[in-house]
Amino acid sequence: MDSSSPPLARRTQRLKSSLVRDILAATARPGMISFAGGLPAADLMPALPVAATTDPALYQYGTSEGEPVFRQAVAAWIDETGLHVQPEQVLALAGSQQGLDFAAKLLLDEGTPMLCEGPTYVAALQVFELFGADIACAPLTPEGPDLPALERLLAEKRPRCAYLIPCFQNPGGACYSPQARVAVAELFDRYNVILIEDEPYRSVALDVSHPMTPICSLLKRAPWIYLGSFSKILWPGWRMGYLAAHPALMPHLVRLKQAADLHTQRPGQHAVAHWLNSDTRSRDLARLREGYRIRRDAMQAALQRHFGKLADWEMPRGGLFFWLKLRKHDATRAMLDRAIERGVAFMPGEAFFANPAEGRQHLRLNYSRATPEEMERGLAILAACLTEETCTA
Amino acid sequence: MDSSSPPLARRTQRLKSSLVRDILAATARPGMISFAGGLPAADLMPALPVAATTDPALYQYGTSEGEPVFRQAVAAWIDETGLHVQPEQVLALAGSQQGLDFAAKLLLDEGTPMLCEGPTYVAALQVFELFGADIACAPLTPEGPDLPALERLLAEKRPRCAYLIPCFQNPGGACYSPQARVAVAELFDRYNVILIEDEPYRSVALDVSHPMTPICSLLKRAPWIYLGSFSKILWPGWRMGYLAAHPALMPHLVRLKQAADLHTQRPGQHAVAHWLNSDTRSRDLARLREGYRIRRDAMQAALQRHFGKLADWEMPRGGLFFWLKLRKHDATRAMLDRAIERGVAFMPGEAFFANPAEGRQHLRLNYSRATPEEMERGLAILAACLTEETCTA
Repeated sequence: MDSSSPPLARRTQRLKSSLVRDILAATARPGMISFAGGLPAADLMPALPVAATTDPALYQYGTSEGEPVFRQAVAAWIDETGLHVQPEQVLALAGSQQGLDFAAKLLLDEGTPMLCEGPTYVAALQVFELFGADIACAPLTPEGPDLPALERLLAEKRPRCAYLIPCFQNPGGACYSPQARVAVAELFDRYNVILIEDEPYRSVALDVSHPMTPICSLLKRAPWIYLGSFSKILWPGWRMGYLAAHPALMPHLVRLKQAADLHTQRPGQHAVAHWLNSDTRSRDLARLREGYRIRRDAMQAALQRHFGKLADWEMPRGGLFFWLKLRKHDATRAMLDRAIERGVAFMPGEAFFANPAEGRQHLRLNYSRATPEEMERGLAILAACLTEETCTA
Repeated sequence: MDSSSPPLARRTQRLKSSLVRDILAATARPGMISFAGGLPAADLMPALPVAATTDPALYQYGTSEGEPVFRQAVAAWIDETGLHVQPEQVLALAGSQQGLDFAAKLLLDEGTPMLCEGPTYVAALQVFELFGADIACAPLTPEGPDLPALERLLAEKRPRCAYLIPCFQNPGGACYSPQARVAVAELFDRYNVILIEDEPYRSVALDVSHPMTPICSLLKRAPWIYLGSFSKILWPGWRMGYLAAHPALMPHLVRLKQAADLHTQRPGQHAVAHWLNSDTRSRDLARLREGYRIRRDAMQAALQRHFGKLADWEMPRGGLFFWLKLRKHDATRAMLDRAIERGVAFMPGEAFFANPAEGRQHLRLNYSRATPEEMERGLAILAACLTEETCTA
């Protein structure tokens, strides 16, 4: 082959080397304390229902839409959120990330205007940018989007679609209030914005006193795609997610599924359906939430000791992350190299914005993996890096 | 939502309703004899190594590239074909269909010229058309492409890439001769065509006396992507495939994997690796081939009885299909409706061509699912449909 690079599709120029991947590679080093990833706590997950996965009847190819028992159980699971869907509106996915790929294929041409939250999920930005979206970011408060800013963006940019994570937003931690949900639905109906609502963290609710009705269920006019994942509560290594969609979009999504990988592996669908239909479900979820609550509270206490004077943050009411804004510092990316050298990893804020400069003051810290002792030691090192960096800046 | 259809990406206009899906839906009717699908014989597959899939260590997220044990075992498996790759060149896929999605994302802009075989795999056409390829089809002989026609197409169309299935081509059944493989590699090097080589049927070789060296291994200059599947020999419902690629393409492909679904489910990778490393492998494959040989021979005998005067075909030396060309008839699509009414399904030829008109004389018949009695009865009905249709035409 020539030393010149081969002729590739234009979109590959937008396929960036992922900062997240580079950091996660660094965290594989033995002894590293990592607040960087979003790995859930596998030890809090229920045991796999082995018999449900090993039936030779599951050896053969399945249907693109998904196993009937899975679609049925997931439709009932979604129903509990307040979004009422039929099993025919459910599509089994190899993790909810796959739903982002399908949404991008369905909705985005090069230059299509779309709306995201600022900050937002890194791998969603990656997909939307790959497909050429012209992304505008709506600023967030802890209760939801800054509504006047959101309406200004809708009027000016006329986005075709919007990607939102209204429950324990990654990385910002926002949980939309009931009022914000209604207001966003009204705006999207008025401007006819197709909503992609992503809910990976809904089941990791720790202390929320208000209902978290999906915005999809409040829309009267705008089409929608609702994404869900089991990866925070059941065996992420099995890659099980789902989408539900407005009936006008479903036929397209099923064809996209067929073109992408024919269908989702069947044993995982049966394992999930078995758990959804089991009578241990509530108990399993309660135990999982209690485990996460203990870890979050330990992180909050350690953060107050080490970052009380250095940063501001809201204690997350669910999800897996703390999102810090530094008071006197705006180069968390540069700080990362020094931290990794000393054995601690975190996610600098710039990865979470379409315009990285907006994230320079921020860092994201995962609380679900480190032990209390590691939290204490790791945060002390991070605070030291920060103070030294500030001194030398 | 408005009754008007929502604004979608341009590519969705190319996302056709799949004839294959419609036919497969019809074949779900009880009592239907189906020669339509490409379902392998699940009863010939080795038993799942259950313990390899249920380890709680596999609950957690994995790496985008794939499990080290899987990449290692697959690299050795590929090595046996004559294509020498390192584990670092292997990417675990959720079935080889996913490799087509990645190849399309990597190589195709709207209007990019590319080359396929005519006829070719339906769901490959679906993906390439979705991404806007301008597809030219190279005509096939049983020993490989018509070489002068291929070179003319390369010179005229200057395709950026080509998609080939050199072993037991689907649907045509061709198995490229060693000479054809060398000639194609030389042409692709000369015209710098990126090769996508797909080998789902390599392991279902029944009687081939010559080596089937992958064309990828014969290229000196052109980059390549090599796709493989376990779905014809091990549990297709688990969706396990792989690709290997030229080092210049791998970093892009790994990022595309991450954006598509983060990584392939881990239990299936461990099940496959366990089988690849087991000492029952050769025995399992010999038993599977013997089972397929018996079914193919039964189909050949039944075809000779019922279609000997109606059609021409080559007996397939591997793979799952017979490809018939009718002598006096050119509307196999119309014939299909009548056949389904009488309880027999097949695939009309038009589905397999970028230009459907080229397939009107052809039909594809799968031999791996029907019993000898069903073959006898089903082919008699098909022949009757054909004779009547010819009479009324």
